[in-house]
Amino acid sequence: MRDSYHEQLDGIGDGLVEMSRLAGSAVSRATTALLDADLALAEQVIAGDEVVNELYRTIEAQAFDLLARQQPVAGDLRVLVTSLRMVVDLERTGDYAVHLAKIARRRHPASAVPPELRSTVLEMGQTAQRIAVKAGSVIASRDLALAAELVRDDDVMDDLHRKLFTTMLSPSWSHGAEAAIDITLAGRYYERLADHAVAVARRVAYLVTGEHLDEDDLEA
Amino acid sequence: MRDSYHEQLDGIGDGLVEMSRLAGSAVSRATTALLDADLALAEQVIAGDEVVNELYRTIEAQAFDLLARQQPVAGDLRVLVTSLRMVVDLERTGDYAVHLAKIARRRHPASAVPPELRSTVLEMGQTAQRIAVKAGSVIASRDLALAAELVRDDDVMDDLHRKLFTTMLSPSWSHGAEAAIDITLAGRYYERLADHAVAVARRVAYLVTGEHLDEDDLEA
Repeated sequence: MRDSYHEQLDGIGDGLVEMSRLAGSAVSRATTALLDADLALAEQVIAGDEVVNELYRTIEAQAFDLLARQQPVAGDLRVLVTSLRMVVDLERTGDYAVHLAKIARRRHPASAVPPELRSTVLEMGQTAQRIAVKAGSVIASRDLALAAELVRDDDVMDDLHRKLFTTMLSPSWSHGAEAAIDITLAGRYYERLADHAVAVARRVAYLVTGEHLDEDDLEA
Repeated sequence: MRDSYHEQLDGIGDGLVEMSRLAGSAVSRATTALLDADLALAEQVIAGDEVVNELYRTIEAQAFDLLARQQPVAGDLRVLVTSLRMVVDLERTGDYAVHLAKIARRRHPASAVPPELRSTVLEMGQTAQRIAVKAGSVIASRDLALAAELVRDDDVMDDLHRKLFTTMLSPSWSHGAEAAIDITLAGRYYERLADHAVAVARRVAYLVTGEHLDEDDLEA
């Protein structure tokens, strides 16, 4: 049987996994809201972020409490300190889903996504969701192969991000500055959401191996 | 005389202040590079970020080392854990200055900033520099009045950011999608750089008082 201290430590891990799952769900719904100009769904994503913020505050308080009362050493200490960094990353993933939903809300009843970019944005949403959920799996399993896979998923996201710019800068772009602003922001939000989820996976890898996953670590 | 342990703790604080100073200097030079299409200056900012990254790695290693070897409690523990979060924020401020410099490089020999936005971008650069340098002062002095001032400086940044959008969305905008993309990204980088510097000040305030500076904390 686990003692109360290790139960609390496990509880922090569970909370981080739950935050990843919520971020994945939020970015998926925000993408639908963007594509379908679905105002109700956008509002739902925006309101739902309060659950993520509440988890953030709870996990932070628990981790500080354990640090202060239990004076953990070595492995447990690294886990707690790393958790206090991961919880910041995961809180940000939730914020980026909200930013996407706010673009949908601002442009409603129109869609912020021009027809020729619908498939790219859809794929960015799916990739972001996959990365967020996988980040949770990496926290739960400490599976380094999965962490490496996630870094490759992020390369897919970077390619999709570049595709947005290629389309906007082509002579056939007919949607003017307003659509370009929205798509530039949305692209940035998807990319950053994925970066933060990848940062979580990198932190787990660092925890397990003591080595950074690759040289791009500081970019994440 | 300070013992070696407290000297090391002070050293971490000094390193964080130095990172703030470097970020302030980098964003100031990146702004000049943007406005004057100064390629050499842009390259200097991009290359200079390695110094910030090196400080990041050094401070992180020192903090983990102190945590592991000294098992600090209470106040010192909070300082170390908070330092491990602030160093992430400050590393990001350096990244945003680099992102700005890269816009200048990409658009060289043209300037990415249309004439009607020059004064706004100049002011954003000055505000960002002021915020970054003040964040360092807050770390060094733990002056909460200065921390609150910094939050107000960030409101100035938000106003300037909105001004960019108003200009780009006005019927008189004649610079098309490409300039809109660059200005949208630059605006976002200035805003985020300031957010991270403000986050540092908030973390110091939390360290001193145990209370968050205000309710927007999670947005930072």
